[in-house]
Amino acid sequence: MKASQLPLGTEKEDPRDAQVVSHSRLSRSGFIKKQSSGFYTFMPLGYMVHRKIEEIIRQKMMQYGAIELHLPVLTPDSLWEQSGRWQKMGPEMMRVQDRHGNFFALAPTHEEAITFLAQQILKSYKSLPINLFQIGNKYRDEIRPRYGLIRGREFVMKDAYSFHIDDASLHETYEKMRNCYRDIFQECGLETIAVEADSGNMGGAGSEEFMVASTIGEETLLLCEDQVTCGYKSNQEKTAYISETTKNDNNGQPVEKVATPGQTTISQVSAFLNSGVENFIKAVIYETESEIAICFIPGNRDLSDVKLKNLVTGLELSLASEEVVKKVTSAEPGYAGPVSLPVMNNQKLKIDKSDKPIVKTVKIFVDQSLEGRKNLVSGANETGFHLKNINEGKDFTACPGVDLVIAGGNDLCPSCKKHRLSETRGIEVGHIFKLGKKYTEALKVEVLGSDGRPHVPTMGCYGIGVGRTLATVVEQNHDEYGIIWPESLSPYKYHLIGLFKKEEEKQPIDDLYEEMLKAGLSVYYDDRNERPGVKFNDADLVGMPWQIIAGKNYVQSGNIELKNRRSQEKTEINREQFLHQFK
Amino acid sequence: MKASQLPLGTEKEDPRDAQVVSHSRLSRSGFIKKQSSGFYTFMPLGYMVHRKIEEIIRQKMMQYGAIELHLPVLTPDSLWEQSGRWQKMGPEMMRVQDRHGNFFALAPTHEEAITFLAQQILKSYKSLPINLFQIGNKYRDEIRPRYGLIRGREFVMKDAYSFHIDDASLHETYEKMRNCYRDIFQECGLETIAVEADSGNMGGAGSEEFMVASTIGEETLLLCEDQVTCGYKSNQEKTAYISETTKNDNNGQPVEKVATPGQTTISQVSAFLNSGVENFIKAVIYETESEIAICFIPGNRDLSDVKLKNLVTGLELSLASEEVVKKVTSAEPGYAGPVSLPVMNNQKLKIDKSDKPIVKTVKIFVDQSLEGRKNLVSGANETGFHLKNINEGKDFTACPGVDLVIAGGNDLCPSCKKHRLSETRGIEVGHIFKLGKKYTEALKVEVLGSDGRPHVPTMGCYGIGVGRTLATVVEQNHDEYGIIWPESLSPYKYHLIGLFKKEEEKQPIDDLYEEMLKAGLSVYYDDRNERPGVKFNDADLVGMPWQIIAGKNYVQSGNIELKNRRSQEKTEINREQFLHQFK
Repeated sequence: MKASQLPLGTEKEDPRDAQVVSHSRLSRSGFIKKQSSGFYTFMPLGYMVHRKIEEIIRQKMMQYGAIELHLPVLTPDSLWEQSGRWQKMGPEMMRVQDRHGNFFALAPTHEEAITFLAQQILKSYKSLPINLFQIGNKYRDEIRPRYGLIRGREFVMKDAYSFHIDDASLHETYEKMRNCYRDIFQECGLETIAVEADSGNMGGAGSEEFMVASTIGEETLLLCEDQVTCGYKSNQEKTAYISETTKNDNNGQPVEKVATPGQTTISQVSAFLNSGVENFIKAVIYETESEIAICFIPGNRDLSDVKLKNLVTGLELSLASEEVVKKVTSAEPGYAGPVSLPVMNNQKLKIDKSDKPIVKTVKIFVDQSLEGRKNLVSGANETGFHLKNINEGKDFTACPGVDLVIAGGNDLCPSCKKHRLSETRGIEVGHIFKLGKKYTEALKVEVLGSDGRPHVPTMGCYGIGVGRTLATVVEQNHDEYGIIWPESLSPYKYHLIGLFKKEEEKQPIDDLYEEMLKAGLSVYYDDRNERPGVKFNDADLVGMPWQIIAGKNYVQSGNIELKNRRSQEKTEINREQFLHQFK
Repeated sequence: MKASQLPLGTEKEDPRDAQVVSHSRLSRSGFIKKQSSGFYTFMPLGYMVHRKIEEIIRQKMMQYGAIELHLPVLTPDSLWEQSGRWQKMGPEMMRVQDRHGNFFALAPTHEEAITFLAQQILKSYKSLPINLFQIGNKYRDEIRPRYGLIRGREFVMKDAYSFHIDDASLHETYEKMRNCYRDIFQECGLETIAVEADSGNMGGAGSEEFMVASTIGEETLLLCEDQVTCGYKSNQEKTAYISETTKNDNNGQPVEKVATPGQTTISQVSAFLNSGVENFIKAVIYETESEIAICFIPGNRDLSDVKLKNLVTGLELSLASEEVVKKVTSAEPGYAGPVSLPVMNNQKLKIDKSDKPIVKTVKIFVDQSLEGRKNLVSGANETGFHLKNINEGKDFTACPGVDLVIAGGNDLCPSCKKHRLSETRGIEVGHIFKLGKKYTEALKVEVLGSDGRPHVPTMGCYGIGVGRTLATVVEQNHDEYGIIWPESLSPYKYHLIGLFKKEEEKQPIDDLYEEMLKAGLSVYYDDRNERPGVKFNDADLVGMPWQIIAGKNYVQSGNIELKNRRSQEKTEINREQFLHQFK
């Protein structure tokens, strides 16, 4: 392809909203163009890269036994109502109403749609396992779209859904997909880290995210420092917190009530009582539409709302209102504690909202890391007072299995329990889930088993963000001059830079281009009448892996200059010798 | 591919809403599956065909110099406001609001989006002409989705947009695209008829539709009976009406007012006065938001609202209210006529709506076919009276160039004016337009010309419906047993039907399949343990072009049976001989 047919659209300036390298480089190289916030046009060269990634994914998915189909993007609300996600997906799911008043989602994901299809086509265990994938548009109404392709509102995803008669079969496909993803990202020249992940509102029994390490990542990853024998890797959201505070079997000192007038934060009380924050119990009170969650965790740690969400019922989790705090602690905010709490677990409370009262259930969660802790300090559930020397097992009881603490770098690895964790930021590019029966049960899918009885199949789902993969490849493959495409993704392998001052000097380079085409080479020919500096800069910016420089020297000697974009190394090579290797 | 890996999803029954062959056959063969009204899932084999059509289009478009890119489907209202189509597109355009309250269209077409892009990237005449295409989702909220893929609400289109410095360049690309389309449809095995078309609300100077003749077509095509020397083909909407009534140069008889109490329709008055309807003037009164159009046409013809729309200003065209009719004729409905009309052309009238009065402009259109007509009958603009013997040129005047009559089969061909037209129904699969500067002017695109001055480029646009192409191929290629795919679109070329009763009889057929794969053949292998009848029926239904039947006879003799799906002819051929030709 020649520049005169397919013009480069390089730009000198970064877009005003470019905060990350991939957004800057992809825009300046003319690969993408913003239409409106979170919506990007893929320009011709950019779309070539996009399609190459799609094709790598498609081929690998088929190689691993998945079958391609294509579901509508607009999905009727009735399907989402059946799974309960019409409400649950919240404002990130875009919705549209047709002329007859029917609602549809602009699908951010297709569990409901594929399960509805499964319900129609799957009859017997003989048609299982089956793994169906598609590559198509998805929508997510990000509250603050940013980072170019990394957090857009319309984007292409490969999503796959597998159906199984039992967990063993699901596990087998899940492992296949893990290998498939490793292959896909490898072929894209992308280094990823597979980490354990929270399943969130997808439901399910296990999931792993494929992360690209990046300082701009919105996820925090925790990796065991020993990646040789232990190898633990997890999303912070999912990482179990392992307490290292010594437990104490004695009964501790007797409880003592102390006046702490006006001291409502842990740091204030800690200074006032001259006791370290690690000796405090932090109380955090949340509410959902139907529950009030009173949480107690160590004073020096933070509460994970992802972990809490998995423990409570309800769609919206938010900090409790002052009114609720007063109601459940009989005190002003700042004085809550696990001892003498005036409400009990599972107690129903009437909350007066402006017009009609709502009944919510109290849930009390005492983090398991408080087990065996003695002589702690907490609020006294009485305004202006705290309790000293409260002791787990005697004055209050920890809940086994309740882990509400955000783990972090330097905490003990929950897998080997020997080494420490280290923190890295990451961008999610792929995700594999064991969904279980959440959707097949909700949408009433049944197949005949080999025992002649109906069985509800279990499901897996597997996603890759195509645009995000493209952007993260640029995050990992660039330098100050521009992008450095891996050969597998580059729009063309060779970028032929023709240097000539007059039209009559151009012919030998045109001939070289034609010969390269004849030899079957993938080549982009900059045949513009531009200064060498402009052409060199553009070639470095758009980042095809090999540059071929042909100017006066070539015309005289027949030698081309071959430049490796990544290493910037140049080699002079005779044109015949160069072309010969492809014959 | 084996049936055990990619199951056939054939069904015995038509969908309940199947009215047309393609909908029935594509559903029964398991190629498509309805999700909700107007939304279809492409099942694995169906999606293979869809992708083959996409690929034919992509390759041909590139061969004819077009460049692929990819625009967002969601397009901000601001772009549509600039072109005036946010209102004009009406309820067929689906709209969505984001969490911040901003509106977007689910694009039914991309003129605005591509012109917005052109405004950013086109700088000089040197970058013209350029022809940019994409293949992607489009949305149209059909009031009554039907005919399966033919009239759905979400569908894939190839849409291309070209930009030019002048009309000559536009014409060149337009002609290229016409050839490109001819190639594309030919390669898809689809017979199309290219007809002149109305440009409707796309604006522009010329357009042609590629039609598939079909009794279920929603368009009426008029073809000159002489397709050898004349060759005129047109959409009925666009066909000029050529009147054959003899003009009369005499003055006609004097006007006579007759009482026609209670006679308000032409047929009533025709019977009452004992005069043929062809001697009547039909009055039809329409209104838009800003105009009242009083139209007079021959009594035996119908008015074309498409032609009228092109003459009036306003978005919504509807029959005038009784109040308006009374106001402009001073009579009850049924008594309008061109003589002594109490309003004049371009007169402004105040219409009293419930709360606030609206001013509308009167437009009087007397169809050109009434020119020279004498002794006609029309309403007298007085309740209960008609006028006899009114004469064009004396009592009223026809408007030259105003053609409001729907042409039909048996009318004179407007091109050769010698032969008659014949009527055919058609389905539109492609459309090419000369758009002109409507969008480039609205979105303020300017490029530097060779004269150093800014010029507004002119545009063309070119669309193909991919799913509709697929469906019409089936409309043209099927028989009572199922689909007959052209080789270019069939998911696989060969359908290997293995006939065996026991597992141990299967091995030689498995081997044959492996050898076919090794020979590089595109083959689908029905390896199910099913009765021969089931397999034969399924093979005919899914319609791959060649069936290879291998059973007991094959195992004994080494001869396979090769069946041509279209002709149903069977040939016995030795397996070595068959495979040899591919080596």
